[in-house]
Amino acid sequence: MNLLPGERIDQLYAEGIKIIQSPDVFSFSLDAVLLANFPRIPKRGKIVDLCAGNGAVGLFIAGKTQGQIEMIELQERLADMAKRSVALNQREEQITVHNLDLKHSLQAVPADSVDLLLCNPPYFKDLPTNSKNPNPHLAIARHEIHASLTDVLKTASQLLKMNGRFAMVHRPERFLEILELMQTYRIAPKRVQFVYPKAGKDANILLIEGIKDGKTEGFKVAPPLVTYGTDGKYTSAIKEMLYGRQ
Amino acid sequence: MNLLPGERIDQLYAEGIKIIQSPDVFSFSLDAVLLANFPRIPKRGKIVDLCAGNGAVGLFIAGKTQGQIEMIELQERLADMAKRSVALNQREEQITVHNLDLKHSLQAVPADSVDLLLCNPPYFKDLPTNSKNPNPHLAIARHEIHASLTDVLKTASQLLKMNGRFAMVHRPERFLEILELMQTYRIAPKRVQFVYPKAGKDANILLIEGIKDGKTEGFKVAPPLVTYGTDGKYTSAIKEMLYGRQ
Repeated sequence: MNLLPGERIDQLYAEGIKIIQSPDVFSFSLDAVLLANFPRIPKRGKIVDLCAGNGAVGLFIAGKTQGQIEMIELQERLADMAKRSVALNQREEQITVHNLDLKHSLQAVPADSVDLLLCNPPYFKDLPTNSKNPNPHLAIARHEIHASLTDVLKTASQLLKMNGRFAMVHRPERFLEILELMQTYRIAPKRVQFVYPKAGKDANILLIEGIKDGKTEGFKVAPPLVTYGTDGKYTSAIKEMLYGRQ
Repeated sequence: MNLLPGERIDQLYAEGIKIIQSPDVFSFSLDAVLLANFPRIPKRGKIVDLCAGNGAVGLFIAGKTQGQIEMIELQERLADMAKRSVALNQREEQITVHNLDLKHSLQAVPADSVDLLLCNPPYFKDLPTNSKNPNPHLAIARHEIHASLTDVLKTASQLLKMNGRFAMVHRPERFLEILELMQTYRIAPKRVQFVYPKAGKDANILLIEGIKDGKTEGFKVAPPLVTYGTDGKYTSAIKEMLYGRQ
């Protein structure tokens, strides 16, 4: 496996997955691990990892399904890392990486064909007042420079089949906008889980699941997740996602 | 103090408040205690307790403010209990109980005059398929027979002054509808707190706060509350609300 300058191989022990990372370009965060553990993964069918980055989310769920996984990633450099990580884990037959603007996803994946769509999108609005990372790779991954939340929901709705499921990780401060856009694009919000950095703090991450053309009744709020214990270490729930059941 | 048949006096020790209750008519629940502990209580100004029942919420916050409290309760029998509980706690100068349909609230409280409006409304839709308590007092308190969520939000919006705060306790399964109606009636959702019956269970209560004519940016998800510990007893957070800091 060829590594480019600055790249290293990290492992997600819980899933037995190796991921090529680079702090200069992109490293997966806890958010990707949380997202991969949030929805029920269908045993077969088509799964899309939108805004795939270096392929972390799709790789983390690959062992839980016999379905095909399509990764869509705009940045050529990141899509190339994802492709090499797929090869490193010998998942070439299951996973296809498309180096593509998500707004052109229909070039790679047929409309109304997807059973589960996962997305870890940029969290921050592309406002002139928002300070951005001078590194363009990181700025594009974090800020809505090339893909807004509207683009994400519109694309997800196009790709999902009726009753297909949408799962996304995002920030609580954008929760109202997320709920509104999901409903605008016919994805009924069904379940949310909030992640708190530690006890007594406001949530800093949200996980949300919806169903295309589903009913909006029966919304559920899943048990809270807390990242760090009072000892400053990961809680057992997070450790299990990272290292597996000990 | 005259008690009617079936009535008894219960105490909320944390606030030093006595409440006249009757299992045949109305008893306050933990939800009222949670609501009274949720928003910051303004030191002065006008506070409304909408759907006041036997007056629990308004009485629980009375000691935290020098403001005037207006209770609005449709059911004559409950409003009468509330009046006697107000007298029992010697709060007649601070609290006025209005036996009034909330849709006629403007008869008792001027429009755009309220600093904080608290509401513990009926939770369940008045659908023909919903089984209701044969006791009409309890059915009216629990089901939207005389007041829908739309009525509640419309009334709250009429009464609140600009930047006045709205706080409500409700059920998570109606969260999407609550957010939509708040925004329809110009109350920007600002903060939510979810209450879970015990660890590992979905939330069964939500507390939500909004600001009339506020901005929808910066939505916050407050730390989770859990009602019961693994020992089946109230958690320390709930005990403190009921019995005070031990």
